[in-house]
Amino acid sequence: MPSQIPRPDTLSPAALDALKAHFGEKLDTTAAALESHGRDESRQESALPHAVLFTQTEADVVDALKLASEHGFPVVPFAVGSSLEGQVVPVKGGLSLDVSGMKAVLEVAAGGFQATVQPGLTYPELNRQIRHLGLFFPVDPGAEASLGGMASTNASGTAAVRYGTMRDNVLELRVALTNGEVIRVGSKARKTSAGYDLKNLFIGAEGTLGVITELTVKLWPLPANLVVLRANFETLGAAARCAVDIMGAALQPERLELIDERQIHAVNVHKGTDFPEAPTLWIELASPSSAALAEALELCRELVTDGGGIDLHAAYSAEERAKLWEARHHAYYAITALNPGHINMTTDLCVPLHQLPEVVEFTRQEADAAGLDASIVGHVGDGNFHVLFHALPDDAETWARVNAVYDAMITETLARGGTCTGEHGVGLHKRAYLAREHADTLGLMRGIKALLDPAGLLNPGKILP
Amino acid sequence: MPSQIPRPDTLSPAALDALKAHFGEKLDTTAAALESHGRDESRQESALPHAVLFTQTEADVVDALKLASEHGFPVVPFAVGSSLEGQVVPVKGGLSLDVSGMKAVLEVAAGGFQATVQPGLTYPELNRQIRHLGLFFPVDPGAEASLGGMASTNASGTAAVRYGTMRDNVLELRVALTNGEVIRVGSKARKTSAGYDLKNLFIGAEGTLGVITELTVKLWPLPANLVVLRANFETLGAAARCAVDIMGAALQPERLELIDERQIHAVNVHKGTDFPEAPTLWIELASPSSAALAEALELCRELVTDGGGIDLHAAYSAEERAKLWEARHHAYYAITALNPGHINMTTDLCVPLHQLPEVVEFTRQEADAAGLDASIVGHVGDGNFHVLFHALPDDAETWARVNAVYDAMITETLARGGTCTGEHGVGLHKRAYLAREHADTLGLMRGIKALLDPAGLLNPGKILP
Repeated sequence: MPSQIPRPDTLSPAALDALKAHFGEKLDTTAAALESHGRDESRQESALPHAVLFTQTEADVVDALKLASEHGFPVVPFAVGSSLEGQVVPVKGGLSLDVSGMKAVLEVAAGGFQATVQPGLTYPELNRQIRHLGLFFPVDPGAEASLGGMASTNASGTAAVRYGTMRDNVLELRVALTNGEVIRVGSKARKTSAGYDLKNLFIGAEGTLGVITELTVKLWPLPANLVVLRANFETLGAAARCAVDIMGAALQPERLELIDERQIHAVNVHKGTDFPEAPTLWIELASPSSAALAEALELCRELVTDGGGIDLHAAYSAEERAKLWEARHHAYYAITALNPGHINMTTDLCVPLHQLPEVVEFTRQEADAAGLDASIVGHVGDGNFHVLFHALPDDAETWARVNAVYDAMITETLARGGTCTGEHGVGLHKRAYLAREHADTLGLMRGIKALLDPAGLLNPGKILP
Repeated sequence: MPSQIPRPDTLSPAALDALKAHFGEKLDTTAAALESHGRDESRQESALPHAVLFTQTEADVVDALKLASEHGFPVVPFAVGSSLEGQVVPVKGGLSLDVSGMKAVLEVAAGGFQATVQPGLTYPELNRQIRHLGLFFPVDPGAEASLGGMASTNASGTAAVRYGTMRDNVLELRVALTNGEVIRVGSKARKTSAGYDLKNLFIGAEGTLGVITELTVKLWPLPANLVVLRANFETLGAAARCAVDIMGAALQPERLELIDERQIHAVNVHKGTDFPEAPTLWIELASPSSAALAEALELCRELVTDGGGIDLHAAYSAEERAKLWEARHHAYYAITALNPGHINMTTDLCVPLHQLPEVVEFTRQEADAAGLDASIVGHVGDGNFHVLFHALPDDAETWARVNAVYDAMITETLARGGTCTGEHGVGLHKRAYLAREHADTLGLMRGIKALLDPAGLLNPGKILP
C-alpha cells in the first residue's frame, strides 16, 4: 500500500496567481483543504492538489476549465470524496474542483417523475427534499455520495436489482468541457434515439472527459407496502442459488442482498444486533396492496424453503426495515470498526447471474486457502458482489496475498463473461484489470479521451492504463 | 416526397470484381435484389445499391469492410428493412450488407436471463425459441424487426414502459469496424463501470460507426397472470392525464397505450373489430398471483374512473390479449389499408411525462387546423407518441401541410425538454431536427464518427446533417 504520492510541478505560480485573482476566497490553499482533498474512502494512497476551488456556479466550473486550458494544469472534480478506487485523488497535483457547494434542487417535476439537480447534492438529501411528494430516488451506494460523483462512476447499490444503476436513472446532463463549452447530453424525455449517445459516455467517465454541472434524474413512486424477509443458508453457494430462483419467479424484489457469516458478525458487533451468523439473504418485496404483498411473501418463502434456506423473520415496520438497511449500508464501516488501524480493500466484480454461485464459492475457497479474513456481501440480483479485505497499511505480506486472490478472482470473472467493476469504477486501482477486460477497445477509449480532453488535463492518471 | 435517388459512381468495376471474386454466390447484383434493398418501410424514397452481399458469418462482414476500406465504397447494413426513417436506403449506392442470414441463437443462459444471438434474428423468432423456458425478450416494435436493426435505432415499443428500450436490454455487442477489427463492447454482466461506455455509442448509431455482428440481450420471466383493461375517455388529454396517474400509483403496468378514435376506427375496419371509437387507453397489468392481479386491476379501475374514463372490459384470456396487441402492432398497416395508394409518415416524439397531455392536445389542434387526417397512438407511459399522417406520394400540397405541422410539433417538443425521436431514430428524415435538438453536440458527434469511420464509408448520409 503506497502512502503519499509526490506532487509534480503541474500548477505554476502564474496559474495560481490567475486562479486567486479570478476566484478570490473561493480558492483555498490551506494545508487542511489540500489534505482533505487528497484521498478518498479507500484511503489506499493520497496526493495533494496545489489548490482547492469551491465552485458555487456552473460559470465557476467553466472559468476554472478555461484557466486550466490556458495554463495547462490538471483539474480533478471532487464532491464528497466517497469514491473507493482513488478517483478523486489528485495524483498529478493541480486543482481539486470541489462542487459540493453546488447542491441545489433546481426543479422537481412530480408528474414527470424527474428532478433537475446540481452535482454536489447527495442522494439522501435529494430524498429528504422530495419525500413529501411520495417520490424517491432509488440509487443508494453505501456512502452519502453526491449525484455528480455517482453518475461519474455509474454507481448503483442495493436497489439496482429493481430500479437500475445511475446509467438507467440519469436522463440528461449538462457537462463543462475543457474548451470552455457547456453541452447538454441526453434528453429530459424518458427515451431518445436522437443521434450518438453522448450521455452514457460521460456517465462512468470519472471526470476524465468533462465536469458534470447539472443532472436530470428519474424519480419513482415510493412503494406503499414493503416487507424484508431474512433467510439463512448452510452455504454461500446455496444462498446465491436461491437468489437466482427468486429472480426467475418474476417477484421483482426491491432489494436482494447476500451477506456472509463474517459480515453478519461484524454488523452484530458494530450495531449491537443479534442476527444469526450464517450466510444470509435479505429480500425486500413491495406491492401496491398488503394482500398482494402477503401473496408475494408466501411465494418467496416457498422458494427459500425449496432452496434449503431457513426462513427467519419478515420485517414489516418502517423502523425495523430501516435498521436492516442501515446495517447493510454500514457493512464497510463495520469491518473498519472491527479491525482498528487496518485499511479496507473492497472488490466489486459482477458476473452473469447464473455464474454467481460458482464465482462466490471460488472466491471463498481462494481467500480461505490464502489465510485471509475476507467477508462477502453482494447485490446478488445483479450478479454483483463485494469482498472486503483488510490489513494494516504497511503489512506488505498480507496485501500481496490479497492481491493474488484478487487477481485470481479477476481471471475467473473474465473467463465467465463478467466485469472487473460492477459499480465502483476503475479509478487508480483497476487500470490493469480494465486493460485485461477491454484490451481490444483501449485504443478507442484513448481516442475518445483525446477528442474531449486533448491536453489530458481532466483527472489525469485515472481509468486508462 | 422524392422518388428514386440517382446512384453515384461509388463502387468501381474493380471493387465489384474483388467482391465477386471473394464472395462468389453470396454477392447478388440482380435487379430484384438491388430493388428490395433500396427502400424501407417508410417508402418515402428509394436508392439502389451497386450490389447486395448476403453474409453468413462474422468473417464475411469483416472481409466486406476490409474490401470497402481498400476500394472506398459505402456499406449499408440491412436485415429486415423495417426501419421508418430511411436508415437502410443506400443513398450513396455501394454495398447493401444483408445480415438476415445470420440469425442463429448462439447461446441461451436461462439461469442468467440472457441470450447471445446473431444480428439478423428477429425478436418474434427469438421469442418462439425461448418460450419453453418460461422466458421472453420484451422489446416489441410493431414490425418483425431484426435484433441488430433494433439495437441500431435503439428501438422500443409497447413494453418499454416496464422493460425499457434496446439500450436497457442489450448487455454486450460484437461490432466489426472499418479497420477490419472486431471489438467486444459492454459486458455479459448486468452492470459494469469498466471504462468508457462504448456499447451505448453503437446502440442507436444506425450502422454509421460499425456493423453489429453479435448481441447478448437480457431475457425476462414470462409474467404469469395478465389482464388488459380498456378504458375510453372524452378527450385525448384526459386519457393522457389518466396515464400519468397510473404511472404514479406504482402499478408498474406491462403496457400502457393511448389510441385515438381515428386509429380505433382504422383498426375496426382493418381487423373487423368493434371497439368504441373514442380516445382509449389499453392498460396491461401482471402479477405473480391472480388475487394480487385482481387487486391491482381494482386500483387501476379506480384511477380510470377518477380520471373521467369509462372502464370497458378486462381481457384475461391469452387469445383476447393477443388479439388486442396484434391490433395495436398493426396500427401502421391499418392506416395503410384504409388509404389505398397513400404512403404514411409517422412521427415518434417523446416528451417528459407531465408534458404529454399538452403536447398531444397541441398536436391534435395543429393537425385539425391544417385539415389533416392524422391519427395518434402512443406509448404514453414513456411520454412517447406517434402521429400517423398519410397522403398520395405526389400530393405535394398535403405533404407541405404535414411538414408544417410536424415542424410545429418539433418546436413544441423541444421547448418542453423532449426529443425528436423516442424510438425510430434519425435516419435520413430527421437530420435537420437532430441539428435543432443537439446543435451544441453535432461537432462532438462528427468527431466520434471520424474516429471510427474516417473515410465515411458506413451508411453515409444518415444521422448527421
